[in-house]
Amino acid sequence: MRTRRTIRQYSDRDVPAELLNELLTVAMQASNTGNMQLYSVVVTRDGEQKKRLAPAHFNQPMVTNAPVVLTFCADVNRFVQWAACRKTEAGFANFQTFIAATIDAMLFAQSFCTAAEEKGLGICYLGTTTYNAGPIIEALNLPRLVVPIVTVTLGYPANPLPAQSERLPLAAILHEETYADYTPARIDALYAEKEALKVNQRFVAENGKETLAQVFTEVRYTKANNEYFSTAFLEVLKKQGFLTE
Amino acid sequence: MRTRRTIRQYSDRDVPAELLNELLTVAMQASNTGNMQLYSVVVTRDGEQKKRLAPAHFNQPMVTNAPVVLTFCADVNRFVQWAACRKTEAGFANFQTFIAATIDAMLFAQSFCTAAEEKGLGICYLGTTTYNAGPIIEALNLPRLVVPIVTVTLGYPANPLPAQSERLPLAAILHEETYADYTPARIDALYAEKEALKVNQRFVAENGKETLAQVFTEVRYTKANNEYFSTAFLEVLKKQGFLTE
Repeated sequence: MRTRRTIRQYSDRDVPAELLNELLTVAMQASNTGNMQLYSVVVTRDGEQKKRLAPAHFNQPMVTNAPVVLTFCADVNRFVQWAACRKTEAGFANFQTFIAATIDAMLFAQSFCTAAEEKGLGICYLGTTTYNAGPIIEALNLPRLVVPIVTVTLGYPANPLPAQSERLPLAAILHEETYADYTPARIDALYAEKEALKVNQRFVAENGKETLAQVFTEVRYTKANNEYFSTAFLEVLKKQGFLTE
Repeated sequence: MRTRRTIRQYSDRDVPAELLNELLTVAMQASNTGNMQLYSVVVTRDGEQKKRLAPAHFNQPMVTNAPVVLTFCADVNRFVQWAACRKTEAGFANFQTFIAATIDAMLFAQSFCTAAEEKGLGICYLGTTTYNAGPIIEALNLPRLVVPIVTVTLGYPANPLPAQSERLPLAAILHEETYADYTPARIDALYAEKEALKVNQRFVAENGKETLAQVFTEVRYTKANNEYFSTAFLEVLKKQGFLTE
């Protein structure tokens, strides 16, 4: 876990279905809300289906190049149907249950990824899933009360392995007893190492910016885009039954 | 990972700070959105602080009995402050960024839990955090753009270890290529083993219900409670700056 890195390029070696199923079974032992398992995963191996999914992920090449694409979903549908078959009605079409299902889906996804990496596989999370949840719902035929949360591409890593990406010092994210808010001096200290890395300085230059933060706020995650995709995702939550109009 | 179980009772053995910090550092290597690390964790060891947190978790005894309580938060505050110190402004006060930060926090939390379990520690996730996020924000002094998502209690397991809890068969949560919606016959098949377990039949009887599903929908996760806590959490998201009024 300490030496893990995200893998975006995969070898030709396929991932056997038995191995995939074994890893998913192990991952199901992750904690979840009340043991209701409010999640599901859609496995994509078919080339045509990958092409249908690709635009929703802004055509990042991993979607079509990886042998396996997994879409992890918050899924309340199965539970609601179980209740309907068992003389009761689940009042689960609401925001709090969506959050519980999202937590369940993430714990399951991350347990799966750790198990896969232990077996020598490589993974890449795509953060585009909640941006374009609508087209993904359509491509995967997801019913009401099911929302895709993250997508993971999976395969054996191609050589050479990419470099491990840096992280902030632990002090940046750790608070003892209560939250100690940041001062400009502490921000400087916590981000100094990250900003001094050659790879990040090159990233700033390539984007024609003055600071690393500007690349994130003005190029990669702009206010306009964040707001556009916020509205889109809130609409999806309404359409899938988790938010009232 | 295959034999893991949730631990709610802990031995007297303390968790050294060096070990805790090592595990958190390993967990930071988990994937996150654009390497922005939109999360933080508040560590509670102080008895008075545990007592302040306990009511927000409906006084579940783990909160005061575990040596360490960790509150994992979606945290956009640190990033926004970094941007402000670096000649730019982050347009991150919106719902999509909240979801990204929630995903980051969950991947970090679950990596931490897996690493902790590998070292012989036991964990319990508390799903109450998003129910009572308001009082937790107050107890931990969380600023705007920080929202608690899950709480984990941590310690060395007391003997004897609890039984491992059952899971649905993999077929219940796995969909190949597209989502195959359920039929009553499939629901019966997928839930048969779970419903036949003695521990679950006892659970139904203890709650004076006819079916296992009724215990969840009519006792543990009622529509009225889900809706009450949905409203409360949406209010918190507004107050913390992630949703507009």
